[in-house]
Amino acid sequence: MKTIEKWDVFETEYNGKTEGNPFVDYEIRATFSYSDKRIEVGGFYDGDGIYKIRFMPEEAGLYEYVVTGSALGDKTYKGTLEVTENTENNHGPVRVRNKQALCYADGEPYHSIGTTCYAWVNQSEDMQNKTLETLKNSCFNKIRFCIFPKFYQYNKKEPLTYPYIRGNKRGLDPDKTNEEKSIIKEAGVENIRDFDLFSFNVEHFRRFDKRIRQLMDMGIEADIILFHPYDKWGFSTMSRECNELYLKYMAHRYSAYRNVWWSMANEYDILNNTGWTNEEWSDYGRLITSEDPYGHLCSIHNCIPFFDYSEEWITHCSMQRQDLYKHVELTDEYILKYSKPVVWDEVAYEGNIDQGWGNITPEEMVRRFWEATIRGGACGHGETYVHPEDILWWSHGGELHGESEPRLRFLKKIWDETPGGTLKRGGGSYDFIVGIPFEEEKECTWTYQTWASYEIHYYGFGRPSYREFNLPEDNEFEIDVIDTWNMTIKNTGRHKGFTRIELPAHQWMAIRIRKVLK
Amino acid sequence: MKTIEKWDVFETEYNGKTEGNPFVDYEIRATFSYSDKRIEVGGFYDGDGIYKIRFMPEEAGLYEYVVTGSALGDKTYKGTLEVTENTENNHGPVRVRNKQALCYADGEPYHSIGTTCYAWVNQSEDMQNKTLETLKNSCFNKIRFCIFPKFYQYNKKEPLTYPYIRGNKRGLDPDKTNEEKSIIKEAGVENIRDFDLFSFNVEHFRRFDKRIRQLMDMGIEADIILFHPYDKWGFSTMSRECNELYLKYMAHRYSAYRNVWWSMANEYDILNNTGWTNEEWSDYGRLITSEDPYGHLCSIHNCIPFFDYSEEWITHCSMQRQDLYKHVELTDEYILKYSKPVVWDEVAYEGNIDQGWGNITPEEMVRRFWEATIRGGACGHGETYVHPEDILWWSHGGELHGESEPRLRFLKKIWDETPGGTLKRGGGSYDFIVGIPFEEEKECTWTYQTWASYEIHYYGFGRPSYREFNLPEDNEFEIDVIDTWNMTIKNTGRHKGFTRIELPAHQWMAIRIRKVLK
Repeated sequence: MKTIEKWDVFETEYNGKTEGNPFVDYEIRATFSYSDKRIEVGGFYDGDGIYKIRFMPEEAGLYEYVVTGSALGDKTYKGTLEVTENTENNHGPVRVRNKQALCYADGEPYHSIGTTCYAWVNQSEDMQNKTLETLKNSCFNKIRFCIFPKFYQYNKKEPLTYPYIRGNKRGLDPDKTNEEKSIIKEAGVENIRDFDLFSFNVEHFRRFDKRIRQLMDMGIEADIILFHPYDKWGFSTMSRECNELYLKYMAHRYSAYRNVWWSMANEYDILNNTGWTNEEWSDYGRLITSEDPYGHLCSIHNCIPFFDYSEEWITHCSMQRQDLYKHVELTDEYILKYSKPVVWDEVAYEGNIDQGWGNITPEEMVRRFWEATIRGGACGHGETYVHPEDILWWSHGGELHGESEPRLRFLKKIWDETPGGTLKRGGGSYDFIVGIPFEEEKECTWTYQTWASYEIHYYGFGRPSYREFNLPEDNEFEIDVIDTWNMTIKNTGRHKGFTRIELPAHQWMAIRIRKVLK
Repeated sequence: MKTIEKWDVFETEYNGKTEGNPFVDYEIRATFSYSDKRIEVGGFYDGDGIYKIRFMPEEAGLYEYVVTGSALGDKTYKGTLEVTENTENNHGPVRVRNKQALCYADGEPYHSIGTTCYAWVNQSEDMQNKTLETLKNSCFNKIRFCIFPKFYQYNKKEPLTYPYIRGNKRGLDPDKTNEEKSIIKEAGVENIRDFDLFSFNVEHFRRFDKRIRQLMDMGIEADIILFHPYDKWGFSTMSRECNELYLKYMAHRYSAYRNVWWSMANEYDILNNTGWTNEEWSDYGRLITSEDPYGHLCSIHNCIPFFDYSEEWITHCSMQRQDLYKHVELTDEYILKYSKPVVWDEVAYEGNIDQGWGNITPEEMVRRFWEATIRGGACGHGETYVHPEDILWWSHGGELHGESEPRLRFLKKIWDETPGGTLKRGGGSYDFIVGIPFEEEKECTWTYQTWASYEIHYYGFGRPSYREFNLPEDNEFEIDVIDTWNMTIKNTGRHKGFTRIELPAHQWMAIRIRKVLK
């Protein structure tokens, strides 16, 4: 009997039928039983006659399982699995907490400091290892990346492997490959849509197995982008049948990794311009969440218009900024509007490329993180510095060249100190915002009649030389001056009543006010 | 016979009645005749038995005038005036050009680089002279200031003179002095509302005569704020009768200065919180414009909600930013919405005081100017640096301590080079904006099929290392790289077809593309 810990991956495999196309012609499934619960999981074909079942137990105890399916003919396999309690660095999958925040399944707050390397698993093995090494030494605990290769500015090279077998061209949607709608206008591109979209290239998906597992062991959430428009190979123009086949394969193959998040699309609306529809996205969203027995986080990411995040299969708002000037500043409004956590997965990248989405300063990147965080949401990082070999972190991974990452680590440290777990917007005025503990209530008025036990006042691009506070006379408050860019925390001691706090007249300052509990 | 040049101030004075209250009990007026035109102007009492008529001729030639009024009893005075053509630095008053831009009456473009010293004429004479000296050495060609003294943060000292005579308390509006509505909550403030609001203190207004004239001679527009809420003396709580008396006095006294602009209020909506109404503002706006024979620019400035700028007495939008994050970026939208020029009279000030409205960086100040200007509007400057004696340029004048002014001068230099006069928004995309000559048409598309003869592409806080252009093959274009902060212009020569321009990957860059005329 195999023993794993709770929220780890149990995997078992079987020889099965190989006649015809095993990806389409057969299926395999398992039922795991524990106490009075039964969990049904789908399996997948991994090539070479091997079918696999993966399972992520969510409670400790003794499980029995039964494996059946047309892939096994009339055979049935049974087994038992012992599940122990989770150990230190395993907190389970990330869940939604009280319609606003994120936390791990074991109750530990999850403070997302995400980054983006869209095509990192489609680069050379060396480059992938370098990316992992960089991640290991970083503060990032989420990474956003695509399964399908990427064709775009700075992304003109062929990927290490393709997700499908070449030749025997079938499975394309004639409407989506319509030349007029296609976002790929380059000569000769049409010719390369020559994949058999019913036949997965298991080598491609095994590489993702390995990388998702490594991220999991590092405590990094894998925000998997299932579809995206930056394609010349035909993977964005598959028939509905092939899209569904792919989504089931993804759910059966990767759901058992606790760190998986589903991102239905990067920039779904660009795909809509080429023939996709919102109804289709909703159907696909329902499909993957129904094939995923564990309820992983699931969302869909926009270029311009937000998808309707109120749809029931969407767990959180995976947003791209819609405006050059104002975006993360709306975080708290969106949390209230959708009653779901807000994760800004693209707010432009630190860098210096030609395009405005990829050339903000590190200071501005950090400011956007603070704005989003203090308002109760989360933000995503990426780097797009011009590189002699066109290796840009945002897509290829590799090494970081910017200056924001240490500051994001500093932000996370402060975020982690929040009593009770995490922050939400707790007032402020036109020129500062206040973050207070998630579970605390506070009357939000400009005159500050009430104070939370813990308040972070953030001043953004303002440069106050001082700030004044009318603290209550009947309690003391410990006040820290936080320089979010220079990463210093200066304690100014205890205060009550009218209090003036001196500041260095720099941008990106915060003041933390902690009620001294009597 | 007196001779003055067109748009200069002609002044003539008469002894008149002094029994009772000359400000209220009598009037004086003149009719100036030239060719088949007749211009009626009101005069004003200047104390010591003297009544004055001021007149600004708008055409050269020989004028006859007749002065009458109850102040003169049954007397009538006549005279003649010779008006010569305007000389070099006199371009006349600023007018609206084609519902979008501003230019002087003689057709010279007026490129507004405004500043703000609300209470400068209410400081000591020495300080006022220092302010003028600073202005003389600056690029500012508009200054915004109040007639009434200011009571506010950093403005707690009494003014040099008061606009009314103390004692004989009368003319207050009982509703507007209502304690519940009053914005002045400080103890004892009520007691000092002891002015006779029917009796002007002419010494106060003579000081403004002198300063407005000096500004005029320096080519600086005087944007006169008629009412404002930062008051403890009662000047914001006068009866309607006294407000009207004051407005007529202002029109009769100052209209003849060509550099006068009327700003009905600073932050009218704060006054509305204390009992003023929009209908009242409209009435007052119509009153002053009907008493001003020359049609000076006239507007009303908000704190939060914009006034309805479409009202006929308003010549331009005098805006304060409504949002911390996005404001001047809406300039071109507002120009189209209101069909009037947009002047951002408050977009926060360069400085380091505690409040967010007064602690932006000089870099951000300059960025806001460029955004507003390239989009076809104008922007206003101010400085609020903490000072050991609380002398802040924004209110007191004095000396500049910041870094934005030389950059605003540089902007004005480039603005002045626009062929045909001035700029308007001519396209751009999500990450840059384009200014083109005011009178040129251009198809605004993302793909740039058409090019204006002169385009300034501004990249704001983006840091592109390069930008690429698909210029037409059949024409050459001269391209300059402009560093708006470091104040450099680098010519890159002539280009056609696909062109890549290298940039230093700094913020606040612009590229100027000039079609080489064949």
